[in-house]
Amino acid sequence: MHPLRKHIEEIVSLTDEEFDFVLNHFAYVKKRKHQYIVQEGEVVSKEFWIIKGCLKSYFVDDSGKEHILQFGMENWWITDYESFVKQKNSKIYIDCIEDSELLYISFENREKLTAQMHKMERFWAKKSKLGRIALQNRVLSLLRNSTKERYELLLEQYPKLFQRVPKKMIAAYLGVSRETLSRLNS
Amino acid sequence: MHPLRKHIEEIVSLTDEEFDFVLNHFAYVKKRKHQYIVQEGEVVSKEFWIIKGCLKSYFVDDSGKEHILQFGMENWWITDYESFVKQKNSKIYIDCIEDSELLYISFENREKLTAQMHKMERFWAKKSKLGRIALQNRVLSLLRNSTKERYELLLEQYPKLFQRVPKKMIAAYLGVSRETLSRLNS
Repeated sequence: MHPLRKHIEEIVSLTDEEFDFVLNHFAYVKKRKHQYIVQEGEVVSKEFWIIKGCLKSYFVDDSGKEHILQFGMENWWITDYESFVKQKNSKIYIDCIEDSELLYISFENREKLTAQMHKMERFWAKKSKLGRIALQNRVLSLLRNSTKERYELLLEQYPKLFQRVPKKMIAAYLGVSRETLSRLNS
Repeated sequence: MHPLRKHIEEIVSLTDEEFDFVLNHFAYVKKRKHQYIVQEGEVVSKEFWIIKGCLKSYFVDDSGKEHILQFGMENWWITDYESFVKQKNSKIYIDCIEDSELLYISFENREKLTAQMHKMERFWAKKSKLGRIALQNRVLSLLRNSTKERYELLLEQYPKLFQRVPKKMIAAYLGVSRETLSRLNS
């Protein structure tokens, strides 16, 4: 079974014809490590689904420091949702931490597909709800937990991330220096 | 026009029959200031739409301090989405800052309504996307901005909130003490 079909069918079931129709709205792209898929200042016209690889979304503050908003790995969706949904300029970057293979859907195709297929509207509605919950927990954690607790939560939730992502990026996600992270880590 | 119909029709258009059908899935409740609509530890079975009033969602840390996650006013939706969507125990409280009039829909009715009516699936999908974007901006702001900047952003986004909500709650939203807020305010 196509990995995207397997992924969608965790939420809604599709016939062969329906999945072919869905897949026709996507295109495939291969990106090398360090290549961008979203850049600050552009209107983001694509939502990406990660077949293989690892990516990060982040913003750069006035002093040039990177702050990581989200990581993405296999089976995750990634884009700048504010720019994509509202069709306004992006405030963030998304680039590849590893060579990555992606499927993407354009804004127009996603609008068409969800308007025509209630099942796909339902699928993405569920995904949006889960994305919102993950961000709610990130806000709760930023308000409530110490850096050490946030480090342990991340390790518990995404153990694989720690094998794939350089420590300086974990630090940029937690909002601490590389040195502080080393102390937590020891 | 019913205020809920006006609100829904900002995203999808409904016939009279369709709106009656939608409204039949909701119930009305009036709450006094300080009354709860969600309590920590319970499975939240309702999503609320605010006809009139002002509410806050928050968690209480181990030292008994309140941290405010979200405010809600007229035309806003409020619940604990993690508890509501995943049907697990809530980590937060939601209570009324003013006497409030609410419409609510149960988890079962929302599932039924979105399964039967593509338009309502689309409506809530859009609302989830917007909620997710608001939280993404809150995370960006917590990582990027100083307390003073976060105070100014909140004032700019929701000027009405400052007339309706005690200063100590604004402080609990920003994650600072009442005294620090007074200094920002002067």
